[in-house]
Amino acid sequence: MANFELISRLAQDKGGKIILLVMDGLGGLPRIPDGPTELEAAYTPHMDLLAREGSTGLSIPVSRGIAPGSGPAHLALFGYDPIQYEIGRGVLEATGIGIEVNPGDVAIRGNFCTVDANGLITDRRAGRISTEEGAKRVALLKQIKLPGVETIVEAVQDYRFALLLRGPGLNGDIADTDPQLTGVPPLPAKARSPEAEATAALVNQWIAEAAEVLKGHEPANMLTLRGFAMDPNLPKYRDVYKLRAACVAVYPMYKGVARLVGMDVIATDPHDTPQDEFNHVARVWNDYDFFFCHIKYTDSRGEDGDFDAKVKVIESVDAALPTLINLKPDVLIITGDHSTPATYKAHSWHPVPTLLWAPKTHMPDRAQVFGERECMAGALGQFPATDLMPLALAHAGRLAKYGA
Amino acid sequence: MANFELISRLAQDKGGKIILLVMDGLGGLPRIPDGPTELEAAYTPHMDLLAREGSTGLSIPVSRGIAPGSGPAHLALFGYDPIQYEIGRGVLEATGIGIEVNPGDVAIRGNFCTVDANGLITDRRAGRISTEEGAKRVALLKQIKLPGVETIVEAVQDYRFALLLRGPGLNGDIADTDPQLTGVPPLPAKARSPEAEATAALVNQWIAEAAEVLKGHEPANMLTLRGFAMDPNLPKYRDVYKLRAACVAVYPMYKGVARLVGMDVIATDPHDTPQDEFNHVARVWNDYDFFFCHIKYTDSRGEDGDFDAKVKVIESVDAALPTLINLKPDVLIITGDHSTPATYKAHSWHPVPTLLWAPKTHMPDRAQVFGERECMAGALGQFPATDLMPLALAHAGRLAKYGA
Repeated sequence: MANFELISRLAQDKGGKIILLVMDGLGGLPRIPDGPTELEAAYTPHMDLLAREGSTGLSIPVSRGIAPGSGPAHLALFGYDPIQYEIGRGVLEATGIGIEVNPGDVAIRGNFCTVDANGLITDRRAGRISTEEGAKRVALLKQIKLPGVETIVEAVQDYRFALLLRGPGLNGDIADTDPQLTGVPPLPAKARSPEAEATAALVNQWIAEAAEVLKGHEPANMLTLRGFAMDPNLPKYRDVYKLRAACVAVYPMYKGVARLVGMDVIATDPHDTPQDEFNHVARVWNDYDFFFCHIKYTDSRGEDGDFDAKVKVIESVDAALPTLINLKPDVLIITGDHSTPATYKAHSWHPVPTLLWAPKTHMPDRAQVFGERECMAGALGQFPATDLMPLALAHAGRLAKYGA
Repeated sequence: MANFELISRLAQDKGGKIILLVMDGLGGLPRIPDGPTELEAAYTPHMDLLAREGSTGLSIPVSRGIAPGSGPAHLALFGYDPIQYEIGRGVLEATGIGIEVNPGDVAIRGNFCTVDANGLITDRRAGRISTEEGAKRVALLKQIKLPGVETIVEAVQDYRFALLLRGPGLNGDIADTDPQLTGVPPLPAKARSPEAEATAALVNQWIAEAAEVLKGHEPANMLTLRGFAMDPNLPKYRDVYKLRAACVAVYPMYKGVARLVGMDVIATDPHDTPQDEFNHVARVWNDYDFFFCHIKYTDSRGEDGDFDAKVKVIESVDAALPTLINLKPDVLIITGDHSTPATYKAHSWHPVPTLLWAPKTHMPDRAQVFGERECMAGALGQFPATDLMPLALAHAGRLAKYGA
């Protein structure tokens, strides 16, 4: 594991341009014994050429055996120890639906639940109401006003919503109100430190008004709040790496994590294809040193268990790749944040195929195509994902020598 | 990363003999796509045989992406965490020109500079005077005497020199006198802790006398002092590894680092060839358990950018290798402290080809020759350089089992 202090000491404010292309959930597994993985099955002439010329390897997102969520997986790719630096659940939920979390904000996950006439919880998930039904209740919650504090509420999915408080002097050190039991009432919001007392009182005022407006809207006639969290105050790319960094992503959550590490988030359309995303990179090419470009649908199709559809997403990325190659980056890295094998239908812990192409300094290895098995004996070996940023900086000529 | 405490607990004062042959800056890169690296291009029948019989792998000097200086790179090879154990700049400079740094000494880097009539710095590097001109000023500085303290001054290169103070009660916790600016006078030597007050006063007395003797010797009519440092008090090979260790090296700096870890430094001639160095190893073979043998010119030719000359140095080492092999070491390791690809003309971060030959215990892998690409899939994998000493001890039968 790279030493973050050391990297920030050695990073220089000059050097080449870096593209980090992340295909979410890229890594896969064969669907039949001896068969190819999704990446191996895909027709990817451009990636294969880059793999043949450059260095390949396998990236370990958090540590062996750990299947990471998108938050820690991306923090690791960005060079932050995903165990030391944790993004609170509330912040992930809020950024995941596009709510900006600024320093001082308190972000919270909410669940609708069902309570009986005595206020005792009978269903912690309100009968798993639809997203549409959830949105109707959220519209009611939007009416609640707190003194001196802005409240932002947005539906997430099914019975889940996100709440954000914005105002002076807020503190998120507050315990969950979900008792994790039925037959008892929701807990009041309770400060875990004296500094959070005032915020907890505001939250309780909001809960009391929410109970009023939800009354009679069974089965979602009450709510619980969890994962109170504030901006994790992550070191910023500009300070640590001396990089002007841009994020090109379609899904809000990845934009959110990128924003938390200090990247500028480039405007995109929710329906952008990989080619559209690469065009965005080209458009802002002159304004930045580092470009994080995120492709969502490799992961989505893996989670669907649709091997062939995941192959097609990979092929659509490869077809658009000349747009990035023609920009002549000094360093082009193609990897995933974790594996999502279609046969597994979920995030997994398998190390992630990675290629690093940096024509002035890369070490060619014997990989002839880009795929899991070729990467196993590659020049990068198996490495912690957090080592990727130091490698990118080194290949871009952005790290000074350590010691004399 | 190996646990240093654990290794020192398990190390036993018995077992086989180990040779650690370090070709400085060994690792390279192809000069044309698909071409060989320097090591791959070199005709090395003896190393190839050892690679075929033994284990190969790639050593990571400090961490991925970090190009190390020779100090940290050698500390890592010697098994010391190069981030935890840092050798101060003054000590590296002094040992680099052959000044012995003993416990209690304070070693300092000096720069000649130019000051105007008001004592303000006009050139921090004194017009980059020649080494010869520097030596003339150093001769003047040698005349300065301090009460109760021995002073050693030697020219380094151009406008740089080294100063060492030797005497009772010295302390090196003193800030640089170089203000890093022109238009201001040099700073006085200032203690950073009360224990260093007396030493700082002595240094200021020395600086005042230096100003007198340099007066009129423009452009180098004044000096600044930097990198005050003392013996880093590294754990010693005898105590940690239970090894009687010898160093055979031609360049002073490597002798200096070896001395700091407690090796005996064998007398060599500055013009010794690899064959001469190996003859020195043979000469003292019966007196030691461990032999660090350092070849400098692989790095020098890499820094020159001279691919063919680096190949020739490697070939000259291989040609002399039978002298080491005929000693029948129990463990023979051939590696570099870092990579210095001729195409890069500098220390780089690329992992270093390594072979470990220990006929009773080595694990043969599929490597057929000694080269970067063969090492990528070797039995040793990619490993931190600090793991090499524990491996050497283990293969020499010098490490007890851990736990019951």
